[in-house]
Amino acid sequence: MKKAAIITCFVLGVSTLYGQTEETVIRLDEFKLPSKRNIIHIPNVNGHQVLKCDFHMHTVFSDGHVWPNVRVQEAWQEGLDAISLTEHMEYQPNKDNVSTDHNRSYELAVNLAKENNLLLIKGTEVTRNTPPGHFNALFIGDANKYVDVRDENLDQESLDRVNKDGAFVFWNHPGWKASQIKGSYEWLPFIEKQYQEKKIQGIEVVNGLGFHSKALDWGLDRNLTIIGNTDMHNLMAHSYDLGRNGVHRTMTLVMAKERSPEGIREALNSGRTVAWSSKYLFGKEEHIKAIYDACVSLSPVYHEKSNAKGAVTKYYEIRNNSDLYFELKLKEGKGTKSIILYPESAQILTTDAKQKALTYEVVSTYIRSDKHLSVTINLN
Amino acid sequence: MKKAAIITCFVLGVSTLYGQTEETVIRLDEFKLPSKRNIIHIPNVNGHQVLKCDFHMHTVFSDGHVWPNVRVQEAWQEGLDAISLTEHMEYQPNKDNVSTDHNRSYELAVNLAKENNLLLIKGTEVTRNTPPGHFNALFIGDANKYVDVRDENLDQESLDRVNKDGAFVFWNHPGWKASQIKGSYEWLPFIEKQYQEKKIQGIEVVNGLGFHSKALDWGLDRNLTIIGNTDMHNLMAHSYDLGRNGVHRTMTLVMAKERSPEGIREALNSGRTVAWSSKYLFGKEEHIKAIYDACVSLSPVYHEKSNAKGAVTKYYEIRNNSDLYFELKLKEGKGTKSIILYPESAQILTTDAKQKALTYEVVSTYIRSDKHLSVTINLN
Amino acid sequence: MKKAAIITCFVLGVSTLYGQTEETVIRLDEFKLPSKRNIIHIPNVNGHQVLKCDFHMHTVFSDGHVWPNVRVQEAWQEGLDAISLTEHMEYQPNKDNVSTDHNRSYELAVNLAKENNLLLIKGTEVTRNTPPGHFNALFIGDANKYVDVRDENLDQESLDRVNKDGAFVFWNHPGWKASQIKGSYEWLPFIEKQYQEKKIQGIEVVNGLGFHSKALDWGLDRNLTIIGNTDMHNLMAHSYDLGRNGVHRTMTLVMAKERSPEGIREALNSGRTVAWSSKYLFGKEEHIKAIYDACVSLSPVYHEKSNAKGAVTKYYEIRNNSDLYFELKLKEGKGTKSIILYPESAQILTTDAKQKALTYEVVSTYIRSDKHLSVTINLN
Amino acid sequence: MKKAAIITCFVLGVSTLYGQTEETVIRLDEFKLPSKRNIIHIPNVNGHQVLKCDFHMHTVFSDGHVWPNVRVQEAWQEGLDAISLTEHMEYQPNKDNVSTDHNRSYELAVNLAKENNLLLIKGTEVTRNTPPGHFNALFIGDANKYVDVRDENLDQESLDRVNKDGAFVFWNHPGWKASQIKGSYEWLPFIEKQYQEKKIQGIEVVNGLGFHSKALDWGLDRNLTIIGNTDMHNLMAHSYDLGRNGVHRTMTLVMAKERSPEGIREALNSGRTVAWSSKYLFGKEEHIKAIYDACVSLSPVYHEKSNAKGAVTKYYEIRNNSDLYFELKLKEGKGTKSIILYPESAQILTTDAKQKALTYEVVSTYIRSDKHLSVTINLN
Repeated sequence: MKKAAIITCFVLGVSTLYGQTEETVIRLDEFKLPSKRNIIHIPNVNGHQVLKCDFHMHTVFSDGHVWPNVRVQEAWQEGLDAISLTEHMEYQPNKDNVSTDHNRSYELAVNLAKENNLLLIKGTEVTRNTPPGHFNALFIGDANKYVDVRDENLDQESLDRVNKDGAFVFWNHPGWKASQIKGSYEWLPFIEKQYQEKKIQGIEVVNGLGFHSKALDWGLDRNLTIIGNTDMHNLMAHSYDLGRNGVHRTMTLVMAKERSPEGIREALNSGRTVAWSSKYLFGKEEHIKAIYDACVSLSPVYHEKSNAKGAVTKYYEIRNNSDLYFELKLKEGKGTKSIILYPESAQILTTDAKQKALTYEVVSTYIRSDKHLSVTINLN
Repeated sequence: MKKAAIITCFVLGVSTLYGQTEETVIRLDEFKLPSKRNIIHIPNVNGHQVLKCDFHMHTVFSDGHVWPNVRVQEAWQEGLDAISLTEHMEYQPNKDNVSTDHNRSYELAVNLAKENNLLLIKGTEVTRNTPPGHFNALFIGDANKYVDVRDENLDQESLDRVNKDGAFVFWNHPGWKASQIKGSYEWLPFIEKQYQEKKIQGIEVVNGLGFHSKALDWGLDRNLTIIGNTDMHNLMAHSYDLGRNGVHRTMTLVMAKERSPEGIREALNSGRTVAWSSKYLFGKEEHIKAIYDACVSLSPVYHEKSNAKGAVTKYYEIRNNSDLYFELKLKEGKGTKSIILYPESAQILTTDAKQKALTYEVVSTYIRSDKHLSVTINLN
Repeated sequence: MKKAAIITCFVLGVSTLYGQTEETVIRLDEFKLPSKRNIIHIPNVNGHQVLKCDFHMHTVFSDGHVWPNVRVQEAWQEGLDAISLTEHMEYQPNKDNVSTDHNRSYELAVNLAKENNLLLIKGTEVTRNTPPGHFNALFIGDANKYVDVRDENLDQESLDRVNKDGAFVFWNHPGWKASQIKGSYEWLPFIEKQYQEKKIQGIEVVNGLGFHSKALDWGLDRNLTIIGNTDMHNLMAHSYDLGRNGVHRTMTLVMAKERSPEGIREALNSGRTVAWSSKYLFGKEEHIKAIYDACVSLSPVYHEKSNAKGAVTKYYEIRNNSDLYFELKLKEGKGTKSIILYPESAQILTTDAKQKALTYEVVSTYIRSDKHLSVTINLN
Repeated sequence: MKKAAIITCFVLGVSTLYGQTEETVIRLDEFKLPSKRNIIHIPNVNGHQVLKCDFHMHTVFSDGHVWPNVRVQEAWQEGLDAISLTEHMEYQPNKDNVSTDHNRSYELAVNLAKENNLLLIKGTEVTRNTPPGHFNALFIGDANKYVDVRDENLDQESLDRVNKDGAFVFWNHPGWKASQIKGSYEWLPFIEKQYQEKKIQGIEVVNGLGFHSKALDWGLDRNLTIIGNTDMHNLMAHSYDLGRNGVHRTMTLVMAKERSPEGIREALNSGRTVAWSSKYLFGKEEHIKAIYDACVSLSPVYHEKSNAKGAVTKYYEIRNNSDLYFELKLKEGKGTKSIILYPESAQILTTDAKQKALTYEVVSTYIRSDKHLSVTINLN
């Protein structure tokens, strides 16, 4: 509607339009952020719902900058299904200003999460010295009963307690600067011990905007559940350019049988996850393949064209029916060399008519730190 | 640079490019929000710097949702010059979880503000019952010495104390729902008393995205300083669509002799302010006019065109050299009827060649609740 | 990836990354518009595919500003299924500079359309004087055989010839300025004649960004197919802010049995269309209802909350599984008063637990010029 | 203003607001692209105006896809000062459909350019076989008098004629694929001859989104004027993501004494230009330095902070007062290592207090194909 009319409405008194006789406050909403819950569209994968989860973040109750409700609000807006407020157990820099009760942030968020249909998984960050590092424990009980001091003699005790409470535990940001020994990071003896005793079940391969590539291989080789999170301390909107179309936070895509804490736990136990950060997917080949197959489809031939020499080219439409991103590079066969499948979009794929199949490398996926998913597109 | 090359960089190991031999964490920065301080460009007005100020917001230390540092961070990013953390004096809903010291949020923000070249004006929100309402006090002293209970017998005492401390006091959101008596809001006897005794010096005419139009007229008629603020409790990015180009928070433009607390105080005392919210400016005609004159310029004639009947049209470029927005509607003369001057942009203005001047109403300005600035453009 | 690394790549020579030894041209692609075909996601409606069609636009071969290929390119990018290049039959202002062959723009676009899987419906704009106005004819034959002069004696002949050729004909922009008699526009005698003789089968209710509201009622009352188009002469990107998320051109949503010219013709003959422009849908109640039902879904109750007085509130998620926009205002029942369903998003709907159903007016729809679709949401 | 009110306005009849009694067409302008002329803000450089120029583009009159008016329209919107429609002299693929008069596109655009205050420089693209390649000639006379066939015997004649007409001639896209000999491109004997005979005066180092790096060095070493253009055939909006903030087309920044064709010619003759594409500037060190100095400023120290060991850090604000982009990497001294100066923004620069100066490499600039501008920032 013309601006003129809008301005005129003010001058005449919004009351006229609202049918009121007294003045009220006039709304100036042009710059207001629309209030809505984004839907991150990913089709079901092999009958599983794909839940969008962030299992690592902080509030003012450890070293974060926001009240717990903000985490629920952000998750609701962005289209997440589940989050965990994983405060540092042993590190409470705000202790002179806020409660040091380890359950408090969960308590302050739990009802808002229910009202917003968000799954709030109770968790904590076991924050030992580095080495051995930090570990998130999900599905915890009373957090005040865990070890909340950094004493290397208590490293094992701290992990034992959360495990005894039935938590799901993963090793955080293995390549974190403080973990590095001369710029490298390794699978430490302490970690090997936890792994052998089944006291870690997962590994965080993407933390915020950092990809810990060696951790991906460790996880794949040892069958640890692959995890990706924000580890957000600040506002999501401070780190991620959320105003730009297509931008999303780092998260774990959990292929669950149902949208519930039990569903998430079962999927985590089964390792049925991939990490999603920026344009990239990280995880086991079988899961990445299943996701690709659920999202990408090829149309039948819609056109054929002959050139002067009699060579025939076939035209197909390749569609990305999801909010994920897939980038394909041709490896075998004669066809379109490079295909970028942006969220909810399509491209034209052409091939020599005699081609029966084309093989592409999906270079935006990592099924090992140095290996992409390979897909074969069968043609007709 | 081609995506292929970027992905290849990962596979080859970022180490190759950095000349390192050990692996480090690989950055996935495509979705990162650029870290920068926006410049809100407004030319000086009559030799005064135009300072961008927000004098009304909250943190977890009253009923806000963020740690004090977040307010400094937001202000730095958005290009503000000065803010005040005006916690509710008498309302501390988080008192079971955070410190109730009334100076705490200021203390926690003051050093970060200095490092960020942001002026942090110490303030508080005197939060009485409604009526009479809420009042912000800026340039306060020790906030723990003010009245922090809501007892109507202490309404006057609460305002007396901040005034004795030399504060600049303004009446907040006069049209706020709770203030309304049967959908209306009035200049209350209590307010008149404060005004007579010079215990309020300003009035908030825009609070968040709400324009309290009657308050503008009250302020203009009584020479109270015109103020506009966010009254933000949540994240700025939650209420304002800051990812969209041109969007800014509600603020007070303070025309100061120098960029300092003293400069701000002098300008507030002199009423040298306008409120800026969405596309609109609110304030005294003389200040709105001065801002318009500083921002908008007309080029010399650059073209003349005759039509079949011999009528001659002259072409000018009218430029908006600021990040403000001006919308003009023709009132007198023969020329372009409607001119929208978006931030940092220009338009073509045409007139009948015989025209000596054109008069426009700047309908995006309010020099009274029902009156826009009128400008005469002299032609050549 | 860090900017430093990108710049470094230039300096080191892209050749290094590409494994070449000679220099090639270095790509600076940061500002490049991604090349992709947008998918406009609208679920099937009652088993029909929803085809996105624009049946009214121009190229340099009448009074447009672009070569025919540009129309195919724009349509492919934006996610359209079908377009028609409807050059003015009797108005060729570029005749001193371009071919005047009435089939030429179609000929120059038809192969590109096939390669892009776009349905190019051959059409023309019968551009008579006004009154009686302009008419688009779709599914035409040899355009050089139609009446290409504006002679009011030939008005009927011009429509007779396209009808004899089996065209689908609709009346364009009935409220167009030139059509107006003292600011009004009417159902003209000439139009009544065409309607009686079945020589017009549709009516354009939205042309570009203008809603011809009386035309909607005329079409509904006389069972004429409801149509919406851009009537674009310039670039789509010049008139529509396509860089902004959610923006789309005006178009006709055609609910077809198959994606083919025959499928489109059958749907047009059956009146199975709605016009879609900006946030609004215009058409027959049955079709708008069917679209709403296909796009909007309500979850089961996910939460219940009691207040102090024992009143129970139920929480639901209402989802918009499409790229359409629906705005709901409560008419009957106790529940959320206003629900804005942005594209591909959800909202929370709360109701008093005793409520069995809620009735909303979908105020972004027009089933008459002054009437919105009403929907009843059944609760559990 | 609330959406409800906008919708209500439709239902009540826009006529009410416009004070009319008859219905008119209702505007649905939410998706309309605002019509405005962007201002590309670059301060004057050493007293020269910085003119934004694109000297290489096509229309339907050679192998482009748009009518000449579209080029004027795009240039006006984007904030350009001067353009040239450089149709292929010897290549007219649309000759069966459009006029082959070599002056036609200029004639059709010249008046619109005047009305829009845009400088339209008459030009042509001498399109020989490759080798030797293509050359743009600006400030030409009657284009129908040039050589319009591709006959290698006429290569020299074609350049002689435009030079005799007083044109400014530059060598286009030297690294263009067709120019490459086994993936390389060279300073050809024919080019050397033109250079010796002063028949080329400039060289295009950026064409569209491709940087021809060897051409930059050739130009710098031989004192040829450095040029950057779009060479646009399609729509600007098709190749450049103009909806995204900060995106601009490739162009030549011409530092002229006055905004006129004469001013541009004088600057071109003097080599007072830099090419600007994406985030990068390309040109002579003296010009890039002058631009940097005009755009970037350092504030006085605004804060000092001591750490536990007594080391003092000084805080400065470094400002980019332009729409250009500058990226700085520290080379010498102790201070902030990396500074990205986005358009119209600032950053914090910190240094050790004893530091007298810092040296940065401006890595977004190229003063040779492999060398960036170095700047020394003097501190206080």
